[in-house]
Amino acid sequence: MNPVSVADTYTKKTELVLPNDTNNLGNLMGGILLKWMDVNAAISAMRATRRTVVTVSVDFVEFRHSIPQGSVVILESKVTRTFNSSMEVKVDVSYEILQTGEFHHSNSAFYSFVAVDQSGRSIPVNPVIPETHEEKELYESALERREMRLLLSGRMKLEDSQIVKKRLNENRLF
Amino acid sequence: MNPVSVADTYTKKTELVLPNDTNNLGNLMGGILLKWMDVNAAISAMRATRRTVVTVSVDFVEFRHSIPQGSVVILESKVTRTFNSSMEVKVDVSYEILQTGEFHHSNSAFYSFVAVDQSGRSIPVNPVIPETHEEKELYESALERREMRLLLSGRMKLEDSQIVKKRLNENRLF
Amino acid sequence: MNPVSVADTYTKKTELVLPNDTNNLGNLMGGILLKWMDVNAAISAMRATRRTVVTVSVDFVEFRHSIPQGSVVILESKVTRTFNSSMEVKVDVSYEILQTGEFHHSNSAFYSFVAVDQSGRSIPVNPVIPETHEEKELYESALERREMRLLLSGRMKLEDSQIVKKRLNENRLF
Amino acid sequence: MNPVSVADTYTKKTELVLPNDTNNLGNLMGGILLKWMDVNAAISAMRATRRTVVTVSVDFVEFRHSIPQGSVVILESKVTRTFNSSMEVKVDVSYEILQTGEFHHSNSAFYSFVAVDQSGRSIPVNPVIPETHEEKELYESALERREMRLLLSGRMKLEDSQIVKKRLNENRLF
Amino acid sequence: MNPVSVADTYTKKTELVLPNDTNNLGNLMGGILLKWMDVNAAISAMRATRRTVVTVSVDFVEFRHSIPQGSVVILESKVTRTFNSSMEVKVDVSYEILQTGEFHHSNSAFYSFVAVDQSGRSIPVNPVIPETHEEKELYESALERREMRLLLSGRMKLEDSQIVKKRLNENRLF
Amino acid sequence: MNPVSVADTYTKKTELVLPNDTNNLGNLMGGILLKWMDVNAAISAMRATRRTVVTVSVDFVEFRHSIPQGSVVILESKVTRTFNSSMEVKVDVSYEILQTGEFHHSNSAFYSFVAVDQSGRSIPVNPVIPETHEEKELYESALERREMRLLLSGRMKLEDSQIVKKRLNENRLF
Repeated sequence: MNPVSVADTYTKKTELVLPNDTNNLGNLMGGILLKWMDVNAAISAMRATRRTVVTVSVDFVEFRHSIPQGSVVILESKVTRTFNSSMEVKVDVSYEILQTGEFHHSNSAFYSFVAVDQSGRSIPVNPVIPETHEEKELYESALERREMRLLLSGRMKLEDSQIVKKRLNENRLF
Repeated sequence: MNPVSVADTYTKKTELVLPNDTNNLGNLMGGILLKWMDVNAAISAMRATRRTVVTVSVDFVEFRHSIPQGSVVILESKVTRTFNSSMEVKVDVSYEILQTGEFHHSNSAFYSFVAVDQSGRSIPVNPVIPETHEEKELYESALERREMRLLLSGRMKLEDSQIVKKRLNENRLF
Repeated sequence: MNPVSVADTYTKKTELVLPNDTNNLGNLMGGILLKWMDVNAAISAMRATRRTVVTVSVDFVEFRHSIPQGSVVILESKVTRTFNSSMEVKVDVSYEILQTGEFHHSNSAFYSFVAVDQSGRSIPVNPVIPETHEEKELYESALERREMRLLLSGRMKLEDSQIVKKRLNENRLF
Repeated sequence: MNPVSVADTYTKKTELVLPNDTNNLGNLMGGILLKWMDVNAAISAMRATRRTVVTVSVDFVEFRHSIPQGSVVILESKVTRTFNSSMEVKVDVSYEILQTGEFHHSNSAFYSFVAVDQSGRSIPVNPVIPETHEEKELYESALERREMRLLLSGRMKLEDSQIVKKRLNENRLF
Repeated sequence: MNPVSVADTYTKKTELVLPNDTNNLGNLMGGILLKWMDVNAAISAMRATRRTVVTVSVDFVEFRHSIPQGSVVILESKVTRTFNSSMEVKVDVSYEILQTGEFHHSNSAFYSFVAVDQSGRSIPVNPVIPETHEEKELYESALERREMRLLLSGRMKLEDSQIVKKRLNENRLF
Repeated sequence: MNPVSVADTYTKKTELVLPNDTNNLGNLMGGILLKWMDVNAAISAMRATRRTVVTVSVDFVEFRHSIPQGSVVILESKVTRTFNSSMEVKVDVSYEILQTGEFHHSNSAFYSFVAVDQSGRSIPVNPVIPETHEEKELYESALERREMRLLLSGRMKLEDSQIVKKRLNENRLF
């Protein structure tokens, strides 16, 4: 399989918030949004690899807005970088109040996936090619986020992380 | 409202993995699990506050196992600590292969919620009371995780975080 | 397969009542509850047998309470006794009004299942072992309920039922 | 409101068995069928009363057949008799294997409902008028089944039941 | 396989309009109704052919009424005529306001299906036999509607359509 | 409210075909696709009007491809033209086989909507402004399709239709 550009993995989904998606105040439940984000990100990952993919992690996700029933939620995702058999997908969520046209960025998140064969074993994946300035920045910073994940999951010791250490010396976590 | 013990917020849900919950290999999709975890954690948060609650964030979540269709997923959650108007809930996920009785811990995650009034404004919440050794440890470490969230969301600068800084001096992130 | 204790078949499910689960007054529909009870009971039956199970009957079920949307329903089930290839499962349902913490027993029911092989033929099942006083009572009375089922389904004549006849002489049906 | 005939309460529903309705062997789950039966019976009850109705009980239900995915399930119900504020609905279930046209009666069940006003309080209901021979028989025997329910729920003592006692003297339970 | 009568393909489905089926005004969404109509029509087509069927087209559908949440929708369909490997199904939709018994015809539509074998290839289908006056009229006029479809899909030129041309000379399109 | 450009009404939805969306051969059911198309088109119509909208009709829809489970369906819609209180929306459907990247146009359809106020009465809608060559062509030809709908619904006589008559003289229906 040939390498694909980041743009080739772009996936967009528009969802209408229905009654069963909401809490007692009539706002979208966080868990429903996490599910929509996962499915959208998985499609991006399959577009990069043409393989079945499996979610391996989700980074810290913050929900800053209440999204009322009857609104439209827009999910956009693309693969930022691939590693040996895994890849990182960025998902951007915004929403629109249909009655007013009011439009807000809601939140973003990074999901990680592995590509697997028919028996579920992970398999190598080709690189994706970033082209725009923003894609290149996300491609570069993906290494840092990956080390952060290894630290958070206990698979890497802090003393072995050059990249995160450097960032800490700059006195910032992200 | 009187304070409640951590144990009073304990919530357990058993789910059967049905066809529509699975990916092309017949394993549970990560997004479905994130949704189940959110609903279970929200019930714990409502049991602590007797208020409508809103998901504000989910910490890093890692999925280490494939859970096949027809399995049973067990979700258990409890509130670890409350803050002004927010609270942290720990969710533990395990699963059981019904044909064999094989039982595995799948993963854990920390969700954060705020309690809100009828117009959706956040309101103060009472403390929860940890009783067991494990509950007390989670109660203590909740402060550290909360600072980590403030750092990750850009609401706190690294130089203002005493707790995380101390941990970094001990050469560990978690 | 070794015998399992009744406690090993215990299954607990917590469900949030969503809009699509309710009737025109916003209360949980009986049919939705019957479905949840069946799934929970089936998991208990599979835990006793490690086989696919098939619902064969439900005893008389009475719904005594209205459970409003936004409440939490708690289902708990365990296998009370096994017979040749069938078994009886007791399901207890309670609910909690989240805003107040008000907690009620809703109703109980007995479901019966058979264990089947891959081609759907019924197969023998091992006994379950009752340990507590309540489990032992349910184990004993299961024989009586089983005869009642055989009478209700027309598979046994009243004159052949020693146990039910005895009960009738004591002037009680249950 | 004027009395309605039993025929006016007749309700028929045809359902296709989809993947999520089935167990691990690909056969319809009992709980899904109980849900469909409840909704169909409730429509019959609303047609008799033009009120919101609430399920109060389900009599013993037995499932005698496995209904495979892709089959069609046919549900037919009608109100057999009304009492003060409650009524009995008979549901007949059959199924058809679409590939062969093979058609089977699956099972029958009696559901009971009460009609309620806007605040959920039970209200009197008009009689239904049986016209055919079968409708008249079901109308008559409804009294017996009602006493059986009162006995099963502990609301009537056996010594107070003339009808069931008489049946027991005839040496049959049903 | 022997020919079947049109009456043998008759299929009736009664659906309750639930919250998730409605738009922001609480009325049934057109798309939900189109889905229910398709499933009902497909069952009629399978009853005519005893084969898996695939929807190939839907003629112009008009929705003339708003159907509120809590109403009952009644779908009735039958095969009007078969062609080589395809067939036409008429679906009639009506609805009932349960509180009042008010009953309305909502709309009708013609769906077309092909019967396919296990690998999805279309296969010949037997004729259906119209018996009533209305069935015979629909059987006759099916030819005209079929030519209209061929014209609308660009598979036939207007100059090759004798039937539609004749109708146009009579100065009517339908 | 100010006029909006056609481009402002553009709506895109990406859907994964799950088990419950498929027929017995594992291909997407036509009715599910009709539902997705309706929801997507309705969002375009609400973006043009900032009002609740109601589906009034769907033109002839033809399904030319089988879309297997696990594929991705892409729906794109925009308002082509508004009339007094109604508007026409074009929906284009394509699909992608994720394993191969194979991409196909599936089908297109025209849905019509009216904008309504809170009591469900139709209200005037502003014009949309076509900008590209394709948008202008669709804007022009919308008049012809609208007359065709009036003819098909029996609201206009053929002799009163100048546009369709002209087309018939050119010996083509579309």
